[in-house]
Amino acid sequence: MKFPELIIRLPDWTIGFLKKSPAMMTDVKDRMRFVIDLARQNIANKSGGPFAAAVFNEKGKLIAPGVNTVLSANCSIFHAEILALSIAQKITGRYDLSDGGNFYYELVTMTEPCAMCFGAIPWSGIRNLVCGARDEDARAIGFDEGPKLPNWMKALKERNISAVRDVLRDEACKVLKEYATMGGIIYNAGHRISPVNK
Amino acid sequence: MKFPELIIRLPDWTIGFLKKSPAMMTDVKDRMRFVIDLARQNIANKSGGPFAAAVFNEKGKLIAPGVNTVLSANCSIFHAEILALSIAQKITGRYDLSDGGNFYYELVTMTEPCAMCFGAIPWSGIRNLVCGARDEDARAIGFDEGPKLPNWMKALKERNISAVRDVLRDEACKVLKEYATMGGIIYNAGHRISPVNK
Repeated sequence: MKFPELIIRLPDWTIGFLKKSPAMMTDVKDRMRFVIDLARQNIANKSGGPFAAAVFNEKGKLIAPGVNTVLSANCSIFHAEILALSIAQKITGRYDLSDGGNFYYELVTMTEPCAMCFGAIPWSGIRNLVCGARDEDARAIGFDEGPKLPNWMKALKERNISAVRDVLRDEACKVLKEYATMGGIIYNAGHRISPVNK
Repeated sequence: MKFPELIIRLPDWTIGFLKKSPAMMTDVKDRMRFVIDLARQNIANKSGGPFAAAVFNEKGKLIAPGVNTVLSANCSIFHAEILALSIAQKITGRYDLSDGGNFYYELVTMTEPCAMCFGAIPWSGIRNLVCGARDEDARAIGFDEGPKLPNWMKALKERNISAVRDVLRDEACKVLKEYATMGGIIYNAGHRISPVNK
């Protein structure tokens, strides 16, 4: 018996979007703004949920972007962070981006990672995490971010991974709210919540 | 700029292995034994770490197997549970296997899920989790299972997901130990631990 394959890939619209984006973003706010724009385009292009992320190197060079493609790819694993991390690993040819601690890579994400993406970070070799909106902002529009440690930043620090949050939080929250207002699908498993009915 | 794609797929050796496996496994111990055998074959075929998992339906029919391909695919996301869940979603055509709570699927895993795979379960639509070896058994050979909630079974229960553990735990532990004894790579990011040096 042969089982099917799945392809992790960025939606086609990202090609045009990325052509217009700077390759280097030295200011963390510029990196977050890029990710927020990416999430907004993901909604406009109906590729998935209102989430985006990207991996940058120590100079602020874009290594790999990611958008949520759960809805378009029909796979609950395909969160923005998972795409960004796996594409960055494909590009570098390393399942540990840091290569045993020798390289520095940062993950910038529009919203604090859910329980799955949070758990993916220590395996990935990422050394710094930058977040825009908070868990509670995603929960406020109905997404269940999953069972996470209350002190998750401390748990990362114990693994030599730093974390910063609330970078352009208000702008990130605006995208979440726009998605909810336009009736975007809130796709928790086991039940579906339409934000218009909340 | 065009970014590369990654393919989530089972290693080729699984085709022959699965031909010899029963399609239906009504006893939970048979399902776990199947998963343990799969992990042992994953080691023998050098496709990745000593981990395997599979999704079954309510009758015990095999829906999708998964093995860890982190090393062969060079991607830290490619854990056994991630493969099994995403292939099951591809087969059913649903990012929520339960389709809003209408279907029952079980994830059987040789070792308690790491923080990432644990976080993937609520999104996936799985309704029951069956584990063989415990977190501490994987930690004992050097794998950092990541920052998980101490009361993770309770967190699943709150989301209507049941969990059973210690099913053929000793047999599962044997596979972990075999992997460590033969000098298999323990691939935590940021640092590498060779079990022979521990």
